[in-house]
Amino acid sequence: MTTHHFTPTSYHNVIGSLSPALHVADGDTVVTQTLDAAGYDKDGSRPAFGPNPMNGPIFVEGAEPGDSLKVEILGMVPTRDTGFTKSVVAGNVVDPEDVRTLPPIERVYWRIDRERSTAQLAEPVAGLENLVLPLSPMIGCFGVAPSLGQAISTATSGEFGGNMDYRLLGPGTTIWFPVSAPGALFFLGDCHAVQGDGEIVGTGIETTFEVTVRLTVEKKKTITWPRGETADDIFTIGNARPLDQALQHATSEMLRWLGTDYGLDKTAASHLLGQVVRYDVGNVFDPAYTMACRVAKTWLTKR
Amino acid sequence: MTTHHFTPTSYHNVIGSLSPALHVADGDTVVTQTLDAAGYDKDGSRPAFGPNPMNGPIFVEGAEPGDSLKVEILGMVPTRDTGFTKSVVAGNVVDPEDVRTLPPIERVYWRIDRERSTAQLAEPVAGLENLVLPLSPMIGCFGVAPSLGQAISTATSGEFGGNMDYRLLGPGTTIWFPVSAPGALFFLGDCHAVQGDGEIVGTGIETTFEVTVRLTVEKKKTITWPRGETADDIFTIGNARPLDQALQHATSEMLRWLGTDYGLDKTAASHLLGQVVRYDVGNVFDPAYTMACRVAKTWLTKR
Amino acid sequence: MTTHHFTPTSYHNVIGSLSPALHVADGDTVVTQTLDAAGYDKDGSRPAFGPNPMNGPIFVEGAEPGDSLKVEILGMVPTRDTGFTKSVVAGNVVDPEDVRTLPPIERVYWRIDRERSTAQLAEPVAGLENLVLPLSPMIGCFGVAPSLGQAISTATSGEFGGNMDYRLLGPGTTIWFPVSAPGALFFLGDCHAVQGDGEIVGTGIETTFEVTVRLTVEKKKTITWPRGETADDIFTIGNARPLDQALQHATSEMLRWLGTDYGLDKTAASHLLGQVVRYDVGNVFDPAYTMACRVAKTWLTKR
Amino acid sequence: MTTHHFTPTSYHNVIGSLSPALHVADGDTVVTQTLDAAGYDKDGSRPAFGPNPMNGPIFVEGAEPGDSLKVEILGMVPTRDTGFTKSVVAGNVVDPEDVRTLPPIERVYWRIDRERSTAQLAEPVAGLENLVLPLSPMIGCFGVAPSLGQAISTATSGEFGGNMDYRLLGPGTTIWFPVSAPGALFFLGDCHAVQGDGEIVGTGIETTFEVTVRLTVEKKKTITWPRGETADDIFTIGNARPLDQALQHATSEMLRWLGTDYGLDKTAASHLLGQVVRYDVGNVFDPAYTMACRVAKTWLTKR
Repeated sequence: MTTHHFTPTSYHNVIGSLSPALHVADGDTVVTQTLDAAGYDKDGSRPAFGPNPMNGPIFVEGAEPGDSLKVEILGMVPTRDTGFTKSVVAGNVVDPEDVRTLPPIERVYWRIDRERSTAQLAEPVAGLENLVLPLSPMIGCFGVAPSLGQAISTATSGEFGGNMDYRLLGPGTTIWFPVSAPGALFFLGDCHAVQGDGEIVGTGIETTFEVTVRLTVEKKKTITWPRGETADDIFTIGNARPLDQALQHATSEMLRWLGTDYGLDKTAASHLLGQVVRYDVGNVFDPAYTMACRVAKTWLTKR
Repeated sequence: MTTHHFTPTSYHNVIGSLSPALHVADGDTVVTQTLDAAGYDKDGSRPAFGPNPMNGPIFVEGAEPGDSLKVEILGMVPTRDTGFTKSVVAGNVVDPEDVRTLPPIERVYWRIDRERSTAQLAEPVAGLENLVLPLSPMIGCFGVAPSLGQAISTATSGEFGGNMDYRLLGPGTTIWFPVSAPGALFFLGDCHAVQGDGEIVGTGIETTFEVTVRLTVEKKKTITWPRGETADDIFTIGNARPLDQALQHATSEMLRWLGTDYGLDKTAASHLLGQVVRYDVGNVFDPAYTMACRVAKTWLTKR
Repeated sequence: MTTHHFTPTSYHNVIGSLSPALHVADGDTVVTQTLDAAGYDKDGSRPAFGPNPMNGPIFVEGAEPGDSLKVEILGMVPTRDTGFTKSVVAGNVVDPEDVRTLPPIERVYWRIDRERSTAQLAEPVAGLENLVLPLSPMIGCFGVAPSLGQAISTATSGEFGGNMDYRLLGPGTTIWFPVSAPGALFFLGDCHAVQGDGEIVGTGIETTFEVTVRLTVEKKKTITWPRGETADDIFTIGNARPLDQALQHATSEMLRWLGTDYGLDKTAASHLLGQVVRYDVGNVFDPAYTMACRVAKTWLTKR
Repeated sequence: MTTHHFTPTSYHNVIGSLSPALHVADGDTVVTQTLDAAGYDKDGSRPAFGPNPMNGPIFVEGAEPGDSLKVEILGMVPTRDTGFTKSVVAGNVVDPEDVRTLPPIERVYWRIDRERSTAQLAEPVAGLENLVLPLSPMIGCFGVAPSLGQAISTATSGEFGGNMDYRLLGPGTTIWFPVSAPGALFFLGDCHAVQGDGEIVGTGIETTFEVTVRLTVEKKKTITWPRGETADDIFTIGNARPLDQALQHATSEMLRWLGTDYGLDKTAASHLLGQVVRYDVGNVFDPAYTMACRVAKTWLTKR
């Protein structure tokens, strides 16, 4: 297995069937530097623009439609001492008439202490003088080329992944994407140092990272929506609006997974999910919202 | 402060301005035995019918519209060795065409081991032979008389509380309801031994409990939606469809709370929520869905 | 058949199992004067307050749960020369961030010319100097006591009818409500002189009317949602949020109706609806939205 | 002005920045034969596959981002004696538990009588023996390349148009699309002989047409969502889920249009829309639903 140090020469605002920037073998590891969501790099240059410029695509040898691409997030190291957020919750997460009371949206900067692995507002804000957040890195946007030769904005998401902005998608997590194009064509970018559920200000703490992922093809593992695994849980992801539909996609995918891999028919899976399922709101900001359906491994026995 | 042992002589399928079954003073404690969601008691008699028969209403002296009723859940002791669930996830939580593949809905029984505080399926189910769930009691449906003299089915919920089916509403949790009628008129029932997020099979493990609550009036504390507190978190609750709107209600209420009690204007509150908020799905089964907006106390300093 | 001239001595802000204000026989006609949505009468007195004070309840002899109450709207005569609207579209009908750009909401008056049957803004508005609207009277809120002894705010709607704000509910239209309480307990009020689809400013032209309805019990005609008929069409009504769910309710009810009364199984009904159905947006302002599923009678043959 | 007879040599299942198949001048007319939604042509050959293969893209000289492409639908002539539909309403348009009662989905054929301009089921269906529908041709899917170089499946829709399935998009209607790519890159296909509101069986009567459109660039006319005009009305289109959001997009776009072209500020526009607006459900089947906001020209005076 090879480790590739991948330095893009261009960045993309869509995820789709573009010309590969890198070819890797099944099981290879890729180390790459991501820009922030607005296109700035770790040195303050701006080689690209938003939304969410992507590194990629990476062609993974052997990946074909009907397979899954397994992406292990091996590491995320912040590479800059600053990050930014938006200053106000998005209009769509409050009662509509309350939008009238929201202040203007501005860009706000955070200091990232890479030694201590914390973030703080760069300018003091009344009431938050002592707010020091532990870093909790995550990849906001990543995925593989969608079906039909589509190329879809990195502002949104779908079966192929994309801008899911789900805070569990960080180091130690593995995610599977459904392959729709030869080579899978993997993209990643838009990393966050911290983010709450829902990405309700429209950003996490947006900054640059060195990201290390291992890319493995699982042949004939046909999935519809992204699936994932952490140390403690398995989860499925649905991307759609409203949240209700994202939840439907994620739950349907979990029922399929519990059936094929854990030997639970729909009744058994219902007994289990009914009493132990957890739903996580990925984002409620992007054009497609993200909901994860999560089950602790403690309840599961793989066949 | 008095402790009342309240034994209802009738039960209610609505929460509304009904004739009080009990009068208590501000700060009193009430101990009462609840029926299960279908109206059975701990001995298998059926003094009432579903949906969710309520004990109450309890008139709390001094409570007037514009106040809040603080309900501390001091204890929940299961009183029966059996509970029931439905056997299949609800049609509305899977992709619509997948509903065609769901098996028929049946009632399923669980054994509750009160000694060990666990629940198990009464009949073996393939793949779940070893499933032993720790009890995690919660009140499915409780609240106060809604505004305008309304009386609303215990199948649903609103600003006044009701059938929220949110799993954090158990022992150790405090919840505040907005008072709309003199005496608040508090109702409770429909307790669950265990329940996953979303109550996606349409039930938790439905059984009977002895519930102990302390009822306190907070004068002039005017709130719009229920607010709550656990050992670790504060939270607000929105009840509506779709989940998006429930989330809007909960987020708007949290912004109000952070403003009045924690000194955070909308910008400061946005900075905080954007990076630390957690959303919990209460239920996605009842006519109104429930979403909680939750913040860890570690991030908050009360003024 | 008797014609009753019904003058309420009190008005109600809920639809529910209240004490009847009038008893009528099956098939009787009722003539009554309604207040406007804010509780003003035709002379400018204010015997009641909003939301939507109702005349009623009217106990219709012979009506029992499982029956339908047929309400023929025989006439609506405006009784005042003024009406009011709100001045700005509701926040929930525009893109969330656009709410920031909406002007403050004010009450605006309209002159009603009862001779010519038209309405005009009382104060000139730039660009609308020549706007003269033909009156198109409709009942905003009417229905029967809901199930379980519920009493539900006249701000919203449900299976029992209520604040549907659907512009086809005017003279010449017949509507059926599902009876849930003995005597049906019929309420009406909140009439509009004109209203667009969706009631998107939160009002029609709100004014007072003399309304004439004939109330007939249809025994054992068990329906779930309101059904209606105009000279040209039949329709069903769903009340819920989001609009998607209101549409589901209305479509499911239409499939039932086409099955029982028109001999069309689900496949035949699908062939027909697929090519000829019309959906009308009743309101997208109230807590429950309203969608009607409408079919021209020209396509139908009653069995 | 030239008339081009355009015979595609390939068809596309995405709308995006593909290599132009035809270049036309601003104001030219194009006549082209469309395949049906499944890729069959008028002779029963199958040169392409679903979803909704498109003719195009057509590069319109002079069109640049920020302009609008005006598409006048000059004619639609059916070119085949058969069409097809699906046999059952989609699961998402009925109450979720009702999906269990729907029969299997099959393809059903219709006879198209081009002489009489009618359609009838090819095989008799009980209760519909006499169903003869007048043809009402419409273009199901058309639009221009979306922003950012995206290429989006013809199963769905967005600001750029796409699979809107709105029955007013037929001969005599004009529609404007927002140009995002040089030359606009216009695509069309998926024509229906008849379709009800909502496309609730997932199809109209799908068949082949000869379509004639005139393509005109309106420089610096910057719009966000498609706008249209019939003999009687103007309308805007929103594409999203749920219907509520599609309605928000369409209403926001109409407010902008009434402001710039009809001299109505948001208050005046609210007065007008509140009392005269009509909402039409385009489709409630595709990944993005379509809602049109329509205003009769009789109420409007162009500045």
